[in-house]
Amino acid sequence: MPKLEKGLVQVYTGNGKGKTSAAFGLALRATGRGLKVFMIQFIKGGFDYGELHIIDRLPNVTLKAFGRGKFITAKPPEKKDVDLANEGLQLAKDIIESGEYDIVILDEINVAVDLKLVDLGEVLDLVRNKPSHVELVLTGRNAPEQLIQIADLVTEMKEVKHPFNKGYQSRKGIEY
Amino acid sequence: MPKLEKGLVQVYTGNGKGKTSAAFGLALRATGRGLKVFMIQFIKGGFDYGELHIIDRLPNVTLKAFGRGKFITAKPPEKKDVDLANEGLQLAKDIIESGEYDIVILDEINVAVDLKLVDLGEVLDLVRNKPSHVELVLTGRNAPEQLIQIADLVTEMKEVKHPFNKGYQSRKGIEY
Repeated sequence: MPKLEKGLVQVYTGNGKGKTSAAFGLALRATGRGLKVFMIQFIKGGFDYGELHIIDRLPNVTLKAFGRGKFITAKPPEKKDVDLANEGLQLAKDIIESGEYDIVILDEINVAVDLKLVDLGEVLDLVRNKPSHVELVLTGRNAPEQLIQIADLVTEMKEVKHPFNKGYQSRKGIEY
Repeated sequence: MPKLEKGLVQVYTGNGKGKTSAAFGLALRATGRGLKVFMIQFIKGGFDYGELHIIDRLPNVTLKAFGRGKFITAKPPEKKDVDLANEGLQLAKDIIESGEYDIVILDEINVAVDLKLVDLGEVLDLVRNKPSHVELVLTGRNAPEQLIQIADLVTEMKEVKHPFNKGYQSRKGIEY
């Protein structure tokens, strides 16, 4: 039974901190209302994230990661990374089309598109064809212009100041 | 026992969506690592938020709201709103100084400063005098320039596109 009358398409992009955290916060709020959330992470995975230790305690939130958790710089990208990302995209299609989840979060999918791990056209089709009651959230820097055009709500997380520029290391519990 | 070697001062500001969600996501991640989180909400309160239904299930996360959950437009603001915000600020001081929490989130405090519910100088003192291992997160639009100057990490959530401009209503489970 869909609980949202109308699901929107949300995009969190930009070079600043808080995109994935905002998606997790959204999942937290939604689960407090009994909504069902499915989160698919691209690029990330094979790595010990803080979120993973708590997400199982949240009712109605499922998380699956389809990445190797490392920076992808090869051009063209390695087949292994392309295959994993497309596996994630296929699951995203199935989950969205099933209509069984109120909110579907595709974390870092913008980066997967930008790195040409997945096809932009396929992602746009996925967005255009979603059941109307499903809320779809796409995160990651460099969101493509065509995605921004068809999205309902777009927020750019803009880095104003970042300590890593001053040589800080990322910290367990805060950054991961 | 403090778990962070060095706590930073983070600010999430701007007119876009995702500031409070990012803070909640941060709390979620941190609690997955066994960090202790205290979140104080300004302006908000006296209202049924989705987050409130789930936060009790998270270990080591405490949330207290010091507001009446409605827009404050009166200039000067009503005494009731000023008193509540200052009660929140006093608790923030006590919690931060105690050093017992790894992460302290002051949600919407930037707005409380902007509306002159609390004194900017007092907030700046609070930030400057925090124990070094405490991570402090301040959210809300219109973050004052002096706060940005002394913060370590500042992200501006910039509204690129928002459906409420087209007349959408906020939705249970997503916006609240």
